[in-house]
Amino acid sequence: MKNRKLVMIPGPTPVVRSIQDQMGRETVAFGDPDFVKDFKEVIGDLKDIFKTEGEAFVVAGTGTLAMEMGIANITKESYDVLVVSHGFFGDRYVELCQRKGLKVDVLKSEWGTIVPVEEIEKKLKEKNYKAITVTHVDTSTGICAPLAEIGEVVKKFEDTLLVVDGVCATAAEPEYLDEMGIDVLITGSQKAFGVAPGLAIVLAGPKALERRKSLGTIRDYYIDFEKWIPIMRDPAKYFGTPPVNLIWALKESLRIMKEEGIENRYKRHIRVARAMQAALEELGFTLLAEREHRAVTLSNVLYMDGIEDGEFRKVLAEEGVVVAGGLGAYAGKMFRLGHMGNIDFHDLVSTISAIERTLYRLGIKDVLGKGVGKLAEELLK
Amino acid sequence: MKNRKLVMIPGPTPVVRSIQDQMGRETVAFGDPDFVKDFKEVIGDLKDIFKTEGEAFVVAGTGTLAMEMGIANITKESYDVLVVSHGFFGDRYVELCQRKGLKVDVLKSEWGTIVPVEEIEKKLKEKNYKAITVTHVDTSTGICAPLAEIGEVVKKFEDTLLVVDGVCATAAEPEYLDEMGIDVLITGSQKAFGVAPGLAIVLAGPKALERRKSLGTIRDYYIDFEKWIPIMRDPAKYFGTPPVNLIWALKESLRIMKEEGIENRYKRHIRVARAMQAALEELGFTLLAEREHRAVTLSNVLYMDGIEDGEFRKVLAEEGVVVAGGLGAYAGKMFRLGHMGNIDFHDLVSTISAIERTLYRLGIKDVLGKGVGKLAEELLK
Amino acid sequence: MKNRKLVMIPGPTPVVRSIQDQMGRETVAFGDPDFVKDFKEVIGDLKDIFKTEGEAFVVAGTGTLAMEMGIANITKESYDVLVVSHGFFGDRYVELCQRKGLKVDVLKSEWGTIVPVEEIEKKLKEKNYKAITVTHVDTSTGICAPLAEIGEVVKKFEDTLLVVDGVCATAAEPEYLDEMGIDVLITGSQKAFGVAPGLAIVLAGPKALERRKSLGTIRDYYIDFEKWIPIMRDPAKYFGTPPVNLIWALKESLRIMKEEGIENRYKRHIRVARAMQAALEELGFTLLAEREHRAVTLSNVLYMDGIEDGEFRKVLAEEGVVVAGGLGAYAGKMFRLGHMGNIDFHDLVSTISAIERTLYRLGIKDVLGKGVGKLAEELLK
Amino acid sequence: MKNRKLVMIPGPTPVVRSIQDQMGRETVAFGDPDFVKDFKEVIGDLKDIFKTEGEAFVVAGTGTLAMEMGIANITKESYDVLVVSHGFFGDRYVELCQRKGLKVDVLKSEWGTIVPVEEIEKKLKEKNYKAITVTHVDTSTGICAPLAEIGEVVKKFEDTLLVVDGVCATAAEPEYLDEMGIDVLITGSQKAFGVAPGLAIVLAGPKALERRKSLGTIRDYYIDFEKWIPIMRDPAKYFGTPPVNLIWALKESLRIMKEEGIENRYKRHIRVARAMQAALEELGFTLLAEREHRAVTLSNVLYMDGIEDGEFRKVLAEEGVVVAGGLGAYAGKMFRLGHMGNIDFHDLVSTISAIERTLYRLGIKDVLGKGVGKLAEELLK
Repeated sequence: MKNRKLVMIPGPTPVVRSIQDQMGRETVAFGDPDFVKDFKEVIGDLKDIFKTEGEAFVVAGTGTLAMEMGIANITKESYDVLVVSHGFFGDRYVELCQRKGLKVDVLKSEWGTIVPVEEIEKKLKEKNYKAITVTHVDTSTGICAPLAEIGEVVKKFEDTLLVVDGVCATAAEPEYLDEMGIDVLITGSQKAFGVAPGLAIVLAGPKALERRKSLGTIRDYYIDFEKWIPIMRDPAKYFGTPPVNLIWALKESLRIMKEEGIENRYKRHIRVARAMQAALEELGFTLLAEREHRAVTLSNVLYMDGIEDGEFRKVLAEEGVVVAGGLGAYAGKMFRLGHMGNIDFHDLVSTISAIERTLYRLGIKDVLGKGVGKLAEELLK
Repeated sequence: MKNRKLVMIPGPTPVVRSIQDQMGRETVAFGDPDFVKDFKEVIGDLKDIFKTEGEAFVVAGTGTLAMEMGIANITKESYDVLVVSHGFFGDRYVELCQRKGLKVDVLKSEWGTIVPVEEIEKKLKEKNYKAITVTHVDTSTGICAPLAEIGEVVKKFEDTLLVVDGVCATAAEPEYLDEMGIDVLITGSQKAFGVAPGLAIVLAGPKALERRKSLGTIRDYYIDFEKWIPIMRDPAKYFGTPPVNLIWALKESLRIMKEEGIENRYKRHIRVARAMQAALEELGFTLLAEREHRAVTLSNVLYMDGIEDGEFRKVLAEEGVVVAGGLGAYAGKMFRLGHMGNIDFHDLVSTISAIERTLYRLGIKDVLGKGVGKLAEELLK
Repeated sequence: MKNRKLVMIPGPTPVVRSIQDQMGRETVAFGDPDFVKDFKEVIGDLKDIFKTEGEAFVVAGTGTLAMEMGIANITKESYDVLVVSHGFFGDRYVELCQRKGLKVDVLKSEWGTIVPVEEIEKKLKEKNYKAITVTHVDTSTGICAPLAEIGEVVKKFEDTLLVVDGVCATAAEPEYLDEMGIDVLITGSQKAFGVAPGLAIVLAGPKALERRKSLGTIRDYYIDFEKWIPIMRDPAKYFGTPPVNLIWALKESLRIMKEEGIENRYKRHIRVARAMQAALEELGFTLLAEREHRAVTLSNVLYMDGIEDGEFRKVLAEEGVVVAGGLGAYAGKMFRLGHMGNIDFHDLVSTISAIERTLYRLGIKDVLGKGVGKLAEELLK
Repeated sequence: MKNRKLVMIPGPTPVVRSIQDQMGRETVAFGDPDFVKDFKEVIGDLKDIFKTEGEAFVVAGTGTLAMEMGIANITKESYDVLVVSHGFFGDRYVELCQRKGLKVDVLKSEWGTIVPVEEIEKKLKEKNYKAITVTHVDTSTGICAPLAEIGEVVKKFEDTLLVVDGVCATAAEPEYLDEMGIDVLITGSQKAFGVAPGLAIVLAGPKALERRKSLGTIRDYYIDFEKWIPIMRDPAKYFGTPPVNLIWALKESLRIMKEEGIENRYKRHIRVARAMQAALEELGFTLLAEREHRAVTLSNVLYMDGIEDGEFRKVLAEEGVVVAGGLGAYAGKMFRLGHMGNIDFHDLVSTISAIERTLYRLGIKDVLGKGVGKLAEELLK
């Protein structure tokens, strides 16, 4: 019997059929009046949902491009920048910023823990940092940064813009730009939005747009806010051809989001994450991320003794579930399991059951039903 | 969180995406050379898989039409016919045959049990029955007739043609026409074939075709074998416009079947049925059909005390699974659960877990994980 | 360069993408509340659009099944029936009625002409005909019967029910049941509805339903009005599994129809037919059907000297357009071209241009652009 | 009657159904073995078809990003660069290069003509240009640069890399990297590939890869060849999430291309362009681009007296065809018509006929059929 392969990695996440159907539509001219209207609506919805008076940018690209876009528009050579890193994706900003000629200081935590907010505040007082970058959820560790608190701290530093990498958080963890003091939010389509990969999504608050203006011409072209602002305000205009079908897909994703209610969506992600994590612990796994800062979008799951990574993931794939491996020092010691976006009870249950069957096949016999039972119990609370 | 609704009724069964895609293709002319080739291949595959030297008929219609087609082509007014009934669908043949002016005798079992094969043999000796009808699996009771044994018996009666209603069995329970002495097999697309509803499928063995010929002109037009034989042999010819997209869908279903291997498919259905039924019993349900004659395609599940049908099915639907209600005297006392066709582990697990959550919500608290555990244990055997 | 193949036969006609998409949806349970609502709406719309206080039936099948359904529900053995035939499909009713044990008289016209209405009236006076059948548009000849006038005549004969075969007319030529005196209208999905083949559609006026009731039990089962009436009134009930996806497809077809307006649709078909027929004549073809009774749904086009049917259709297919051949005595002398349903200017232009290129390739050199020019001129009037 | 809207702009071009279907598939993990294989095949095919021993890059983005990627990987601050411009898109490289700190010289032609190759050669002798950019087809003017000749010239200058903007040419005009001396070819998915927009495609020859290596770390991150080379060689690796569905779509596009044969594809584009342009001239239009350097991918069509741009395009859209307006000084004086990629005869015929009907509606009466006739005549040569 051939099982469907559930893609339970932390991105791309499962794409529901109504979003797939938008991808499969006949492509129209980017100037088609109906498409222009759709694109406008997408931009408006993003600004509404993530609450900014600034601007939303949706361009063909990925989260990686969005990261670069996020920093290139608010800094120039030799600016001081503070990078807060809770893992692999936090670290990425170091190289990226250095390439741009920025002077980079880094605050790193041990994997699985956070950089205490007080340390951030202390550090910010040391220099006139023009920007600070924070990865909201670092998929390498499953750590969720205490963004609201960090936002409160950064607000105290007039010159310091807060750049948030929301790739693995946006649309699942609360992110309200202007309220929370986020100046730039960068993200992608293929995580909690539940859209196929191919979009870089950036939201810039008023201070970020002002900063951009003050920089004059920048060295970057495709990712320059100034090039895209006219298009985002009137998508009938041209700078680069918009990825028509992906924008329709994002529109359907936003429709689903609005139908659910963004607050309900955040609450659902908490409920799902707590249930999945309880189920995984019930099965004897431990989680890398400390409990108080655990992401709701994915779980970074450490193997118990006797379970070998390659074999575990191979058998799990045979049981119909694909997860991701660990990164860095945790390669081979951990698997990463996404549980964000438009997944439902059935996907969760299927995943935990498949993990149980995998453990059973690898010799841990008393697990069948235990995780699924715990999961259901938690979800029904 | 909006759950997908898994359709776990005994038909239509879940249609996999590759079959859906055939449904959604651009329709072509029925005389299109590629379509003619496809249609021919479908007819050939049906004859191969269900092993007959006779003919296969695929026409726009349903199982109900196929039932009528099955009897109208081999009988004429005042013929004696024996109907073996293990439930609602068995009974249907009584009315149908009477309408056609046949003299009908009926052998009925109590719901949940079979008519003993010896009784059938005894009855056949009484008169010169021109036909006997048997419902392979009666979805009202979940009883699977001992078809091979019945076939052996009927073979002894030269004049008696065996008509098998395979609507809820074909492609899941072994049915080899010429070997097993089945003269006419009638079925539909929307059960174990896993295709959308809309096709009547009939296979007629050599004796049935001969009988048809001997009848001369019959009163029926659309369902007359003689009208369709030229088309089934050369689908470029016209009698009625073939349902192009459904035939493509059936072709994809047959491709999946051949890829799996029909014998493997039969074995899988046994394994799945035994596991699902064990899981249901583990949860405290009892099954209507006696163990030795239980269908592999569906389970007819009697409620335990304290569970009310309407509420159970309503809550289960909220948990994302749709099942069917009981028929006849069992309306309100039973639900019917399909587990045939192209379903996979995930669907099964999701279904049992949803049933557990439903029981839990209705006050039976010690069930979470128990059924899923049992299911997995059985499937991993 | 590979050309798309435009299917310009008189059915199946081109299916637009939004209808294809309905075909490709995930199938749901026939009792799914949303589907039940959709089915109900389809039935209601059919009754509204074709104006009857009676009943609409939509079942898995084809036009051929619908023909049988149309006659079987209003007649019993030895009734007198009058068949008016303008071609191959008219003739079909003779055999069909004879099978049912009816006494059949036939009024036939020479192909390309009609049976004068006065002759029909004269004939009806001769016997107590219980039914008269008329093919609205006979695709073998392209003749459209003067249905309104015939209806007026038949109204004078209390006992005579008017059965109209609308397979190649419904949704393109006006058919208002109760107003026009049509008692039974039978049709299929794959012609002017622009849906894939697989549905038999029958509308029965009040007198037809009454007649059915008066007959008691009939010999037919699947096509018995009495079996389906409860389902058409409440599609949550079961008689045979409805072809879920085809019903959705029909619903989308009806939506398109209502958006256009049925009267506008009729007018468009006239405009298109007149333009296509003018273009074909401009190219030197003649049409089989006499001008005053020419169908709007298709053209039956006689070849000019020197053009050989097989070669013409082969080259035309290479140029990307598929048409149908002639039937009966006109096989090899004629091709049949559908221009009904949801086709648009582009399809029409492409078709005429492909015909021009075909003639050119076959040696008639002065045609390029002439037909398309005429077509455009007519359409722009 | 609602006409389909044919999108005949110079990109996005019509996407055929089989490519749409790839867009609409269920997204899988980027590490899915089947996807990794597909991606590898795409990269291999690109290198084969466009003949380079170097590397192919396919990343989420657009042609605009590809332009930047093309220049950023082979230059560093203060390098001399020569831009050859035949219109709006040629000019774009000036700004782009200046942003990167390059010293830019420009050779511009009058719109509709080319910069003579001798002038380019003369200019290249003046300085040690590290790169020269040429727009193969500039969609603003419809001019096709004499690329083969330019390539021969540039080959003489060891240090000068030839960057070709193939956005509106690749897959329609011959581009063989290593043979023709093209060092970098940049393009997008939505033009002659016939894929939806969303991909930046870059091919880099051996000299370009060497140049990249010699530059050490560059300021750009997302578009850095060095970041992507490991991924393009082994797509199981991660740098940014690949746009899974778009890559499948490109794979299908390449399959179509290989089926047709790339040389046949180039020939077809010539044939189509010559026919379309002859038809447009027959109707009284003149073309901006001088005859010997006219693109095969689009036509830049100057209005005759009395035709007003806005009205023309509005009426044409009503007739079911969307074209693009003129750019720069030609805004309002010209329309731009794409005829590249996977379009067929029907699209061409429909377009010319719609243009005829539009002229007719705007008062030019003697055009109906003339253009279509000419088109057919040319295509049948």
